[in-house]
Amino acid sequence: MLNIPPKDEKTDALVLFMPSGKRGRFPVGTPILDAARSLGVYVESVCGGRATCGRCQISVQEGNFAKHKIVSSNEHVSPVGPKEQRYASVRELPDGRRLSCSTQILGDLVIDVPQDTVINAQVVRKAATDRVIERNAAVQLCYVEVDEPDMHKPLGDLDRLKAMLERDWGWKDPLIAPHLIPQVQAILRKGNWAVTAAIHRDMDSSRPFIVSLWPGLKNEAYGIACDIGSTTIAMHLVSLLSGRIVASSGTSNPQIRFGEDLMSRVSYVMMNPDGREAMTKAVREAVNGLIGKVCSEGGVDRHDILDMVVVANPIMHHLFLGIDPTELGQAPFALAVSGALQYWAHEIDMDVNPGARLYMLPCIAGHVGADAAGAALSEGPHRQDKMMLLVDVGTNAEIVLGNRERVVAASSPTGPAFEGAEISSGQRAAPGAIERVRIDPETLEPRFRVIGVDKWSDEEGFAEAAASVGVTGICGSAIIEVVAEMYLTGIISQDGVVDGSLAARSPRIVPNGRTFSYLLHEGEPRITVTQNDIRAIQLAKAALYAGIKLLMEKQGVDRVDAIRFAGAFGSFIDPKYAMVLGLIPDCDLTEVKAVGNAAGTGALMALLNRGHRREIEQTVRKIEKIETALESKFQEHFVNAMAMPNKVDAFPKLAEVVSLPARKVFADEGEATGGRRRRRSRE
Amino acid sequence: MLNIPPKDEKTDALVLFMPSGKRGRFPVGTPILDAARSLGVYVESVCGGRATCGRCQISVQEGNFAKHKIVSSNEHVSPVGPKEQRYASVRELPDGRRLSCSTQILGDLVIDVPQDTVINAQVVRKAATDRVIERNAAVQLCYVEVDEPDMHKPLGDLDRLKAMLERDWGWKDPLIAPHLIPQVQAILRKGNWAVTAAIHRDMDSSRPFIVSLWPGLKNEAYGIACDIGSTTIAMHLVSLLSGRIVASSGTSNPQIRFGEDLMSRVSYVMMNPDGREAMTKAVREAVNGLIGKVCSEGGVDRHDILDMVVVANPIMHHLFLGIDPTELGQAPFALAVSGALQYWAHEIDMDVNPGARLYMLPCIAGHVGADAAGAALSEGPHRQDKMMLLVDVGTNAEIVLGNRERVVAASSPTGPAFEGAEISSGQRAAPGAIERVRIDPETLEPRFRVIGVDKWSDEEGFAEAAASVGVTGICGSAIIEVVAEMYLTGIISQDGVVDGSLAARSPRIVPNGRTFSYLLHEGEPRITVTQNDIRAIQLAKAALYAGIKLLMEKQGVDRVDAIRFAGAFGSFIDPKYAMVLGLIPDCDLTEVKAVGNAAGTGALMALLNRGHRREIEQTVRKIEKIETALESKFQEHFVNAMAMPNKVDAFPKLAEVVSLPARKVFADEGEATGGRRRRRSRE
Repeated sequence: MLNIPPKDEKTDALVLFMPSGKRGRFPVGTPILDAARSLGVYVESVCGGRATCGRCQISVQEGNFAKHKIVSSNEHVSPVGPKEQRYASVRELPDGRRLSCSTQILGDLVIDVPQDTVINAQVVRKAATDRVIERNAAVQLCYVEVDEPDMHKPLGDLDRLKAMLERDWGWKDPLIAPHLIPQVQAILRKGNWAVTAAIHRDMDSSRPFIVSLWPGLKNEAYGIACDIGSTTIAMHLVSLLSGRIVASSGTSNPQIRFGEDLMSRVSYVMMNPDGREAMTKAVREAVNGLIGKVCSEGGVDRHDILDMVVVANPIMHHLFLGIDPTELGQAPFALAVSGALQYWAHEIDMDVNPGARLYMLPCIAGHVGADAAGAALSEGPHRQDKMMLLVDVGTNAEIVLGNRERVVAASSPTGPAFEGAEISSGQRAAPGAIERVRIDPETLEPRFRVIGVDKWSDEEGFAEAAASVGVTGICGSAIIEVVAEMYLTGIISQDGVVDGSLAARSPRIVPNGRTFSYLLHEGEPRITVTQNDIRAIQLAKAALYAGIKLLMEKQGVDRVDAIRFAGAFGSFIDPKYAMVLGLIPDCDLTEVKAVGNAAGTGALMALLNRGHRREIEQTVRKIEKIETALESKFQEHFVNAMAMPNKVDAFPKLAEVVSLPARKVFADEGEATGGRRRRRSRE
Repeated sequence: MLNIPPKDEKTDALVLFMPSGKRGRFPVGTPILDAARSLGVYVESVCGGRATCGRCQISVQEGNFAKHKIVSSNEHVSPVGPKEQRYASVRELPDGRRLSCSTQILGDLVIDVPQDTVINAQVVRKAATDRVIERNAAVQLCYVEVDEPDMHKPLGDLDRLKAMLERDWGWKDPLIAPHLIPQVQAILRKGNWAVTAAIHRDMDSSRPFIVSLWPGLKNEAYGIACDIGSTTIAMHLVSLLSGRIVASSGTSNPQIRFGEDLMSRVSYVMMNPDGREAMTKAVREAVNGLIGKVCSEGGVDRHDILDMVVVANPIMHHLFLGIDPTELGQAPFALAVSGALQYWAHEIDMDVNPGARLYMLPCIAGHVGADAAGAALSEGPHRQDKMMLLVDVGTNAEIVLGNRERVVAASSPTGPAFEGAEISSGQRAAPGAIERVRIDPETLEPRFRVIGVDKWSDEEGFAEAAASVGVTGICGSAIIEVVAEMYLTGIISQDGVVDGSLAARSPRIVPNGRTFSYLLHEGEPRITVTQNDIRAIQLAKAALYAGIKLLMEKQGVDRVDAIRFAGAFGSFIDPKYAMVLGLIPDCDLTEVKAVGNAAGTGALMALLNRGHRREIEQTVRKIEKIETALESKFQEHFVNAMAMPNKVDAFPKLAEVVSLPARKVFADEGEATGGRRRRRSRE
């Protein structure tokens, strides 16, 4: 059996691996694990074929294969041997599962590589899109049995360990983390010369790197994907072996006490000698605290965390890494560093395994950070044939537009209106906040939904249901909807002016100094949409649209094929209303999607597959950065975009789906948008 | 002139560089620096051809060159231009010197690359051998002028610095020390976008590494070569640019307070829970203190030290690196790590530049450490055609024997007798110690020299001259001499027994219990050589010789071509007497040399030329280690070597040079040594 014959169609067995569909011929007697590896089918193994780690489980499929009738494939594999029996008795081996290292091919086979969360090689995201991330983590666990010391061959303990890592795993001339050097001796003896080494394959050096070492068999290691936002820090704790998300959580960024928005934090640094240190300390402590939280939720020892990937906006990026962000507060908005960075996690004060690494995605530009790079990695405009627009709306909107051929990016100063900050009745998305609004085009009466309450406000029992949470304000998504509905129902003109003459028709139109407001809810508090609120939304949406328009011009396109809304704002707004207001260009609504925390998903991808690190590094180098402040046309686009869209032809895709009244309003307009807007702006 | 024509024997100029003798043809107009580099002639340059650093000085030779009569070569170089004039006025440019970056070839030339200590590319050692170490330091200083930030091209500061290091110096995709990342921004601005980067080219990774950064032009960087001995720590401070040794110094190892010898220090670790930490701290503090001392002597800021190379015996190696040495105190004497190691110097608590690296040479075996590797690098048996024996005598003797073909190494337990430790009148080499001894073969009267006194003891005025220092004991070198002279004069037999019958002939032979002693000096103290002293020397020399003999057998040789004595002991003993006593095998006496602190010289070589690091790493991997304790023949050789050599034929080279009485003694003997010794040992 050990005398393996050459490949021969007549005598070799045909083996098909599912779900990848990869197939090949192998001599009878070949272990299934070896066959999988030779075909590039990812099957994990820590113990190196000793049938102790249980990571290499597969199952043998019953049924037909190609032209061969196979009554039971199980006749075509070697029977369960003593090693496998021992494993099954000590650990758990589910019915039908075999250890591929200990199962030999005896004939034609169909093999299932399990995709479950315990031992699979891939991960199914919990997030909105059901994406599969191919697993190719930077860290791999490798069990070896090391020769005992020998006076005839006085190689050091570490040197014999390295030799065995090369012999059994092919790691050529590995390096070792300095803190481990004094520990190797004791760990080898504690494990009775059997140890598991964590090998990091994505160091700055191309050489494999021993980053951690345990006595005996170590069968699990974890990673952290983290998105540090100005307001919120979000985190996933992931098994690096199975790709399973063990826990996800978030916490507020404690830097808020130094300043609500990014610019006020930069000011704090400029005004306080120890400001930078204090903010760096605060954010690092928060990240450490959040690591503690996800570890506690997942029942994981934080010292089993061996790899971290972090994304952040440029100012958070600098503060987290201990870099003065002052330059980012003023032209030319110079990043201290834009490329991807690697650290030992302890160099950034992370309390995880002392050999853990930390990878920070590259920044795209002074206003388009590693978080935008993460979102780009997640949504992948650079992987598309179609023209994809990726928008992440916050105080600034990061905009990426492109396809396989070319990607351009910009940041547009939308201000905080979309987050409810400059809106008279604005508030964060929380119980009591109005999140959906409809206005009857005839009566101008509103109906709305409130976060935490199941019923619409015009449904029976709403008052009772809302009694506990109250109706406290309008959140970001509802601001978009109410202004859009006001436009669709003619309450505001194309230029955004509340039509005071309607006060005669409806008590909802109420005077407010020299202008009029729309009364959304009579209660405590009284919730209105003022003329100033509308102006704030107009400014914000004009800035966003002007940035998008600029990038579309750079790409030479007048429409986009797909739109991805990243971030919390994008998750709640209704794309239809975003289009009615002209936040985004016309697009097939089925191609407009909210993708949640795409930046965090990008971090997760880079954590689970180091190939994605190279992908985003190369992509960011190629992305063309457009600085809106330097583009003379930006101002023109901005002014033009202040008004609402007014022409059905300009939004054919939208016109197909918006409600009839909307169509009517659209149809009422006959004149081209641009000319009229420009004229008006000169008045 | 910029329109450089292709190489053409008729039109290109022939340029010869001295002293390397390298030559080549270059188009008229080529800067001399470029010509040197294209031929591999090492000419330093920090400023990258801007005529500001002054490192690239050369001089143009007058006179004949090949068949061309050149009245004045200076006609064949471009005249001094404005950049060179500016340099000469701001800095100093010696007469006849030119800046090779700013001097163009106009015709056939002979160029002198200065070998002086200020700007040269090589270093002449201060030590015994006048060796030239070709300079190829791991650290290079590179001045660059970086583009200012540009909103249109939002590359980070660091990324633009990297781009310039690649453009101007060819450093592809350099890495950077993490502590520098937050500093890059401020340093670039302080230098008004001109900075000097220290590039380390010998990191574990093959990529260039930015380890330090200064605003403007930085024109000097230093390195440390250090030998950590059990008793003494020795250090050189060296300019990494010129190779000049700026200062050399030594200090005693403060670990002595934990134990005089190595094994008592290992015991201390075993007996005290914090013993290892305390000794690691002590030796690191001592090294830091010594760095302070050499920096103070050399007028150098310790933060300008960018590279360190350390050698040490295995136990010092482990303690310095923070590794428990307990395993080295017992069989199988397992090293925790034997290969070469690299650290950031701060990881070993070194108070130097935060970007400084520390390189530790590999250990050869559990008893043959990085110091022996350093000595091997320095003396280079692996570079020889002849069979070279390298011996470093301390409490253990490290023995290396070999040539280009094959090198073997062993450690032999000589004990401390050679250091005077087990000798009744023994003492350290210090003023008052007897260092040379002669005995008259007729009268058996001694004459001797004392450290600190010019005259021999039988010369007129000795008593007066010696009055201030006294005559206090016998140092290691004199112990060898007095025992050898006692043998040559027949006071002791071939078996080392003091001939009591001679007491009748000379008052120098005095009874001492059941044996006799030789009275060397009647004074306070009274200095005698006792039978026990002779036994101690016999044991020590037998151990040394047995080790050497074992290696000679492994090599299949019965004589060696050259002997190198490393270490303090080797510097003082007379090879002739070492041979008379049979410490070393017969060898042409002109080929027996003391080489001082060869381990430290090896460290220096590895500091100044990273090629030597690869050389010793490869050599150590190939050296065959012989564990004397496991070799059955070692005990036999040891027993046989207890007696003194007795056959002229066995020492033909020695017989040519030793004094007539010695010859007589040699000639008196007729029987083969081995048989008689073995017989006696069985009695």
